[in-house]
Amino acid sequence: MVQLPETPTQHSVPTSTDVARLAGVSRATVSYVLNDAGTVRISEPTRRRVRAAAEELGYVPHAAARSLRAGHSRTVLMPAPSFPAGPLYSRFIDDLQRALGRLDYTVVQHGTAGPYGERAARAWAELRPVAVLVPGPGLGPQGVRILKRSGVRAVVTFGPEVVEGAHALLMDHACVGHCAARHLYDRGRRAIGVVLPEDPALEVFSLPRLDGVRRALHGTDATVTELPLAHDEGAAARLAARWDLLGLDAVFAYNDEYAMLLSRALKDTGVGIPRHTAVIGADDLMLGRLLRPRLSTVHIELPAGRDLATLVDRAVRDPRAAPERRTVLGARVVPREST
Amino acid sequence: MVQLPETPTQHSVPTSTDVARLAGVSRATVSYVLNDAGTVRISEPTRRRVRAAAEELGYVPHAAARSLRAGHSRTVLMPAPSFPAGPLYSRFIDDLQRALGRLDYTVVQHGTAGPYGERAARAWAELRPVAVLVPGPGLGPQGVRILKRSGVRAVVTFGPEVVEGAHALLMDHACVGHCAARHLYDRGRRAIGVVLPEDPALEVFSLPRLDGVRRALHGTDATVTELPLAHDEGAAARLAARWDLLGLDAVFAYNDEYAMLLSRALKDTGVGIPRHTAVIGADDLMLGRLLRPRLSTVHIELPAGRDLATLVDRAVRDPRAAPERRTVLGARVVPREST
Repeated sequence: MVQLPETPTQHSVPTSTDVARLAGVSRATVSYVLNDAGTVRISEPTRRRVRAAAEELGYVPHAAARSLRAGHSRTVLMPAPSFPAGPLYSRFIDDLQRALGRLDYTVVQHGTAGPYGERAARAWAELRPVAVLVPGPGLGPQGVRILKRSGVRAVVTFGPEVVEGAHALLMDHACVGHCAARHLYDRGRRAIGVVLPEDPALEVFSLPRLDGVRRALHGTDATVTELPLAHDEGAAARLAARWDLLGLDAVFAYNDEYAMLLSRALKDTGVGIPRHTAVIGADDLMLGRLLRPRLSTVHIELPAGRDLATLVDRAVRDPRAAPERRTVLGARVVPREST
Repeated sequence: MVQLPETPTQHSVPTSTDVARLAGVSRATVSYVLNDAGTVRISEPTRRRVRAAAEELGYVPHAAARSLRAGHSRTVLMPAPSFPAGPLYSRFIDDLQRALGRLDYTVVQHGTAGPYGERAARAWAELRPVAVLVPGPGLGPQGVRILKRSGVRAVVTFGPEVVEGAHALLMDHACVGHCAARHLYDRGRRAIGVVLPEDPALEVFSLPRLDGVRRALHGTDATVTELPLAHDEGAAARLAARWDLLGLDAVFAYNDEYAMLLSRALKDTGVGIPRHTAVIGADDLMLGRLLRPRLSTVHIELPAGRDLATLVDRAVRDPRAAPERRTVLGARVVPREST
């Protein structure tokens, strides 16, 4: 055991010793009262005196002390994702945070973006979370071991792959591309373009989606053409200008935003949608329904925050249980007018 | 001082005592080596032995111990915003996190959404951050006092108002509405509608924007009409259906997304844009440029992450300095075809 002062004291910060002195009780009593240790019997007048002293001095207990009383910390750490968080993902995280909050966990999002090497795992371990939820790929088995050795009771990954020792919520975006490609094929399209955003941070989604397209069309008479595209009008116009040379009759445009970008450029070039080229996006944004023709899309379903929070809680309570693996990403086509 | 064990030990987690025993050195030496305390001279072979022992055991120092050696913690806490984070805000936060990371701060986003009462301030204080950055309004002077008394060296608010004792980065969205209204007025429009999203979480932006419109038009011959609008096509169609009764010749549509929603409904009803009604959004989204007519918008400028990180660092170094107040939100109209 290392002895830690409560907090750095470059200016005068009240300590539990100050509270104990003012309330006329022991430091242990201060700790019991302020950390709500139900197991120790302390009279109500004493509790009131301690709370009043803490309030007068502006003393707040240290989270680590509270963890000690509870038997473990209640902090769930989530590193910041290395991809730009879209509205779908943001809503999922909000939902998860609220659900964990109701189970009395405190969620902290840690500012390290991926890739998550062993160095990152050590930085997280220093904060002594009870669970770590890792978005996207990159944390290897060694990272999981570092976390577990430091006392983390549950490591849960959200990504395309299973990492040894961690619970895995499998979010394989291949299914998004797969069902988009099946839909285009079923509509009789055979020369299928796939938009790949040039932003490298999106490859974690775009490459699995491309892979899903390839798998859906494998062994058929359809062809797949990769279409790298930057997120601006000029790039879309340049792609549209050589559309005839590409000989495509359909495009899976990565998501609705890229689909809107490309549709505008195709329309401006005189390419008929869907007569000449069918266009499908993904994410089912409200804005896609505003396009004319209305944009077909892949609706993506993320799991409910409450279900995930329950999984985290179960894993924390039983850290020796075998890792769970669950496929949590659902995808279905919403056909509209553009395909 | 309260004595804290390193971590709860329900399963066998290595402690610095274990590292000291394996390396054959004192616990203090382990702490000096693993927390990079430059002031203490320890030989390179001893350092290597300690590091090897820590690695073998899987020991990671506790962040609180590291804070102690550094003289203060390096954790900057940001509560989660109570409003849905749009792409502009998300980019700003990413940028700020990276900039603080380069100054060797660790940013943690805390999962409490506002309103931020004293209870929230106490929960943050328990994590002993060196600085707290609060998005949006709600933290009162008492919250600031709680944080400062617990050892937080800098409290910085990002919102429309100044809070006593805290540095304020003033982000008053009134200027967004103000310049939109001036633009519409300059184009000869006099009956001006203002879209108010029905999502209450957006009021923190929509009400100041409305206020800015009112101030810009105060004392002129123009009128202001509030237009509550839900984020769906049906609501927009219903609003468009009674457009003639409203007698408006211009609308500031809150942001580009609502502007696209309303423009679609107006077009479907046969209302000419901008001939009959001028439409302006805000946020300068790429998608707005894809509309025909191209959407006029208000470009909003948030401060650079690096500048803010520098302010935070300066405030941490000199916690007794007078609070800084800076207006950090810039707004200018980008006129296109819809006004």
